[in-house]
Formats: sequence, C-alpha cells, structure tokens
Amino acid sequence: MPVTLNTSDPDFETGFAAMLAAKREDAADVGDAVAAIIARVRAEGDAALVELTNRFDRTDLTADRLRLTEGEIDAACAAADPEDRAALELAAQRIRAYHARQMPEDARWTDETGADLGWRWTPVSAAGLYVPGGQASYPSSVLMNAVPARVAGVPRLVVCVPAPEGVLNPLVLAACRIAGVDEVWRVGGAQAIAAMAYGTQTMQAVNKITGPGNAYVAAAKRQVFGRVGIDSIAGPSEVLVIAQGAQNPEWLALDLLAQAEHDADAQAILMTPDPALAMAVVAAVHRILPTLPRAAIAGASWRDHGTVIVTRDLAEAAALSDRIAPEHLELCVDDPEALAAQVRHAGAIFLGGWTPEAAGDYVSGPNHVLPTARSARFSSGLSVVDFLKRTTLSRLDPASLGAIGPAAVRLAEAEGLGAHARSVAARLAQVNG
Amino acid sequence: MPVTLNTSDPDFETGFAAMLAAKREDAADVGDAVAAIIARVRAEGDAALVELTNRFDRTDLTADRLRLTEGEIDAACAAADPEDRAALELAAQRIRAYHARQMPEDARWTDETGADLGWRWTPVSAAGLYVPGGQASYPSSVLMNAVPARVAGVPRLVVCVPAPEGVLNPLVLAACRIAGVDEVWRVGGAQAIAAMAYGTQTMQAVNKITGPGNAYVAAAKRQVFGRVGIDSIAGPSEVLVIAQGAQNPEWLALDLLAQAEHDADAQAILMTPDPALAMAVVAAVHRILPTLPRAAIAGASWRDHGTVIVTRDLAEAAALSDRIAPEHLELCVDDPEALAAQVRHAGAIFLGGWTPEAAGDYVSGPNHVLPTARSARFSSGLSVVDFLKRTTLSRLDPASLGAIGPAAVRLAEAEGLGAHARSVAARLAQVNG
Repeated sequence: MPVTLNTSDPDFETGFAAMLAAKREDAADVGDAVAAIIARVRAEGDAALVELTNRFDRTDLTADRLRLTEGEIDAACAAADPEDRAALELAAQRIRAYHARQMPEDARWTDETGADLGWRWTPVSAAGLYVPGGQASYPSSVLMNAVPARVAGVPRLVVCVPAPEGVLNPLVLAACRIAGVDEVWRVGGAQAIAAMAYGTQTMQAVNKITGPGNAYVAAAKRQVFGRVGIDSIAGPSEVLVIAQGAQNPEWLALDLLAQAEHDADAQAILMTPDPALAMAVVAAVHRILPTLPRAAIAGASWRDHGTVIVTRDLAEAAALSDRIAPEHLELCVDDPEALAAQVRHAGAIFLGGWTPEAAGDYVSGPNHVLPTARSARFSSGLSVVDFLKRTTLSRLDPASLGAIGPAAVRLAEAEGLGAHARSVAARLAQVNG
Repeated sequence: MPVTLNTSDPDFETGFAAMLAAKREDAADVGDAVAAIIARVRAEGDAALVELTNRFDRTDLTADRLRLTEGEIDAACAAADPEDRAALELAAQRIRAYHARQMPEDARWTDETGADLGWRWTPVSAAGLYVPGGQASYPSSVLMNAVPARVAGVPRLVVCVPAPEGVLNPLVLAACRIAGVDEVWRVGGAQAIAAMAYGTQTMQAVNKITGPGNAYVAAAKRQVFGRVGIDSIAGPSEVLVIAQGAQNPEWLALDLLAQAEHDADAQAILMTPDPALAMAVVAAVHRILPTLPRAAIAGASWRDHGTVIVTRDLAEAAALSDRIAPEHLELCVDDPEALAAQVRHAGAIFLGGWTPEAAGDYVSGPNHVLPTARSARFSSGLSVVDFLKRTTLSRLDPASLGAIGPAAVRLAEAEGLGAHARSVAARLAQVNG
C-alpha cells in the first residue's frame, strides 16, 4: 500500500515533509571510481576504452570496432520492425516540429546613444548523446536528445551506447539513423563520458554531453562539467497526477503505473480532493499491477514511493505541487488550464484526461528529458538552446562612447582598475579633443 | 616579454597548442575541504556559519548580525560618492534595457492533429548572488548578476559578500540597493554557498546561485549543483584582440592591460597580420605597464600569459580565435562585422576600435559574466534565462490522441513498457469504441 496523506490530518505536514526529504536514489558514492576511470581514459585513450568496455560489457572488442560501421547500422535498421520504424519516424517528425519553434532569434538594435547592441546564437560544434544499455536502452531517448541537437544545427552528433554481451537494440540504431546521428560507438559508463569529453586516438572530443545514465554516468558527467557542457543530472523519474471530477480511475491508475514501471526508485503521486476517486484509483492500481510485464518493478515503486494525498481543494493541490516541483504533472481535472495557471514549478504539464504522460514520452512533441528530483524549481527540460550558445555583440562609436564612457571610467576607478579606466579615457580624449 | 608566435613558423602549432593547454589556474584541490564545510553548515546551520565566517574573515559576528540591516545598507549608500552612485544608476539602467530584450516568450499553438502544444516561462523563486570580498569586490558584478534576475521576475534576491575584518565596500551595497537586492549577508566562501543552497535557521535557501568566486567558492558551487542551479564555473579572465589597419597602438595596449590587471592568471592575447602593429602595441604595453596602479598584477599576467600571434591574414586569425573560444573578443579592424561573421565561438564580441572591452564591463548593457577557459565552445554569458525555467505544455483531445496515440503504444511496447502502452491504449479504446 502506498502512503496515504490527508491535508486535514494534524500530522500531514510531517508526512509530506518526510516524503519530500526521502532519498529515492541509491546513495552509493562512486565518485572516486569514476575519477579513476576518467584519468585512465585521458592518459591511455583507446587502450583504456577497450579494456574497460570489454571488462564491464563482457565483450571482446578491439579499438577499430568501438565505432559501428554504416553497414552495421544499416543491418540493424533493416532488422527493425517496419511498423516500429514508422512510429519512430512519426515521433521524430513531431519532436522536430515542436523543437523548431524553440530556435531563439538573433537580435541587433541601436539604442538612443547610438550604441549598436545585440547577440547571436551558434550551435556547439559537436554533441555527444549518452544512451543507456540493457533494459533502459530506449530509442525514444535517442530521438529526444538527437533531434533537438540537429534542429539547433549541431554539425557532429555522437552517440555512445553500451553493448552488454555485444548486444545492441536495433531500434536504438534505427532512431540514430532517423535522427541523423553521425557516429555511434558501442561504449558505455563513465568511460564513454570520459572519451566524449577528452577524446581518444579514434574518437574526437565533443563540446556538450547529454543523456540519461546510471550513477557512474551521472558522476562522470558531473566530473567533466566545465571541460564540456552537460545537461542536468537526471535522477529517478516522478509523476504527480492531480485529479478531480468525472475521471476514469483506470486511466489514472495506468498513468501512475506508467511512472512506477520505469524504476523501483520512480515515484507516482496522486493528489485529489475527492476521497472516493482516490480509493477507486488505488483499487484500480492494485487490480492492474499484477497484469503488467514489469509488475515487480512497478510494484516496488508503488509500495515504496507511491503516495496518495487527499487535499481540501485544487488550490491546495497546486500549492503542494509547487513544493514537489514534479518532473511530470498531469492535470486530470475539469478545467486544467485554470489549475495550470496556479502552478509555478513543473517540468512538463499534461492538460486534461486525454493527455496521458506516455503520449508525451513518445509522440506529442515536447521533450521527455525533464528536470527530476525537485530541480524543476530551477531548471528546464532539454531544448534546442542546450545545443546553442549566445555571443553578445556591442559596437560603440565616438558619440555613444562619449555618452556612456565617462560612467565606465568612474566605475573602473572606483574598482581600482586603472587600465580599464584609461582604455576608455584615452578614447574619450580623442572624442572630446 | 610575452610569448610571440608567428603562424608562418614551422613550430607554430606546437607553441599554439602549448598555449591552449597551459593551465592558468592554481590546481589546488580544495574539494575535500569544501565538502567538509558544506557538511558542517548543513548539520549545524547558523552556528557553523558564524564560526567559519569569524575564522576566515577575522570578525566577531553573531548569528543575528550575519544579515545586514536596512539601516546599514542605507548608511553605506549615503557614504558612497554621489558621482559613483550616478554611474552605477546609468550602468543599471543600460543593463536592464539590454536584458529586458532577452525575456523569452511563452508559446502555445494547435497543430494539424488538433494537439494543443506550447511552453511557458516562470522565474525561480529565489536567487543567491555571490560577490567576492576584498580587492575583487566589484559593484559592477552585483549589477550584472542582480539586474538580470530582477528582469526575470525573481521575487527574492539574496547577496552573500564576505566582510574581511568586517569591512564591506559601500559601492557594493549601493549596487545591491540600485539593483533591488532583498537581502545582503556578510558571509563568504564555501560556507556562503552552502548556506544559500541548504538554508540555515536564519537564511532561507535559494534555488539558483550565481556569481564569481575563488577556488573554494567554485568548488562549493560545483558540489551543490543539483540541489540548486548554478551558473558556469568562472575561471581566470581572458581577452583576444584581433587588430589590423589604422588602429591606435596605445588603445590596444590599454585593452590588453585592462585584462591583465584583473589577475596574474588572466590572459591577454593580441593577434594581427601586421608585424609592425604588433611591435607598436607591445612597445606601448611596456611603456604603460609601470604607470598602472596594478602594475605588479598586470605585469605578472603579461609576462606569464601574454601572447602575441602574427597571422597570415584575418581569416587565419578568425580560425585560431575559434580554437581559443575567447571570453572577450575585440575586433579592432576596418570591417569588424565581416570578421565577426567568420567567428563561431566567443563569449562577447566588441566590434571596432571605439568599443573597448572595459565599456562592456560596465555600461554597454550586455552581461560581463561570460564563459571562461574555452567554455564559450558550449556555454553563454549570464542572461535572464538563467533565472527562468521553462514548463512544457501539451493537451490532447480524442481526435489528436487518436492520430498520434497508436505510435506511442507501438513504441512503448517496443521498449517493454506495458503500462505506458496501456495508458494510451485504454483511451484509444474509448476513442475508437
């Protein structure tokens, strides 16, 4: 049974705070092990990459086989089910259309002093996308990372995906092809992150690394941050479903279970002012759970982290939602727009009962790489902007420097920076002379 | 004498690569010391904050005196020179005007399937700005961090600034007032970062921390990343001046020295196809250097990191510039726009000889918090977007779910996520039933 809280209970705050503070992730500190792996890849390059890959993935590769050939990718695409490939194509097209609207615009203007100001955007030269192996090797994640990078205009896209026992998911490779990935490497873990950040004899370094991964991958991304850019560190996934009115309890139960089946650390939360609806959803969860292919994982998540919160009204639910800052927020209520307007912190909002989160995981268009572990308080889902950088532009002339330069001289002198002051003052002398 | 390279020399590549690889920062690993400080502040709160502050800043504060009173800030503002305050007001107004144009727009549209998609932006609830103490306590940095946060609509702005021996810079406090900072705390170092990230009995935690700092501050920001958002980790500053034509060598020398005077680790690079201009600029640097108030610092930077590169032409200079990815790029050439178009990686570009970098440090309007240490390859200067986060929105109806839902079911099944598939399929059954 999940934890059930009622905001009318006197000890609600204690229970809610405990839920917020609960650490869902394994706290194993892998930082030292990861630092050693990164140091080895930096020092030894391919030799370390081959040895670590063969050891961790139980393979027998050589350096020249780390990167997949076009023929290997072709063969995998051909082996993928045509209907699956068509679904990937539809998803890619919709993700592309959504993200194309995110392209920020360059700007340039002249202000009242004559100063010519602006900025412009350029893509990173190369991006590396990490794709987990094994069960969590999701073709949809390839699209969600690679398509925005391509929309941003990144000229070189690298994917690293481990091949445990040499096995790769054909649909992952099909997704790489559909998204326009340039290079696919069968390398995983911290060694893949190190190789992408620092390069080896055969792999050129990239400038930005994105994508989910296990604790080793997350620690490696954290350690190479600064050398390359990274996306936010992904934690276990969560959904908050706020429900009221004539909602189908079975749909809501499936939405909760869709979150729970990701990972035993995932969290599914139901909030509703309607105790009868809460009971009906919980009953449906328990009815459906044993019928799922991933019943063990979903059951563990639901048992350990599943939470049902009965609120006084929807306004209270919105306020509690902001304290959770959920990665995914489903508003299965009569007027989802009105409720969304009351919410400030959420990675993605799914409006109304016809918008299951799972549609957004694949085909709606918005990115499914979203801020976890309450980080929606300060960060956003992946977007084209993650693969771009802004260069600011300024151009002064004698008139505009004459107008604003004296204040710069004043402030530079106040800060004790004499050359700063003189670099402006020498020009002002010519303006005024 | 600075290093002088000529791209026509056979060993140019060796020298240029050595310059790129040179570590300008002290490599002291302060990670463990910082981790201990963060752990103490988390465990003990104000008691630790007071003890660490008094120890490191040689003060005798109590918990109730960590935060400055409005009266103390008022007194500092009154003590500041009115002309300095007026210069800060002009700078703030110009930074505000520039950054107001960066406010990203919300979007909402309906696509051809009837899917209603979009996103919206909201500010973080609280931002913490770190301001270094002592000589590097710059009022201009307060404006460059606080004004964009205010433009973004952040409702609570906190500044932490150490007060060594109890001394604070009145202009820093005046800048806090002008920028609309809500709380100023006389706390510095890793303990300030820890307090802002985790909160104490008297200081509420923030969600985003920005601002420059020493190695301890940088390490602390790195360690609290994930708990809060951070800006990029600032390294030593650098300028690349590309010059050609009828440029005033003295102006260029002052621009190089303005960079060098920041820090002995700062780097000033001159690139020109004109050897005579290079010699004239170097001569001017050596003539001006001894006359600067910070001659020792600027001299050390110029001696250890100053570099002059003679190129074949401007196109070659642009290509080399991209390998440096300079924080600041001055284009003191006849046609700076044409040259700027050839450059891809730079934090800020200053166009033409009338645009000294120092004007941009204070009053032009663009932010002076820029990517250092070659990180302009993948990151951008500070902007209003750093204080905002994007929530994606989607709303399907039976028709749009009917159109795109089957592909989601297909992909969910291919990924082995049964509840995902069923959460969509259950709704599709009603669409089709």
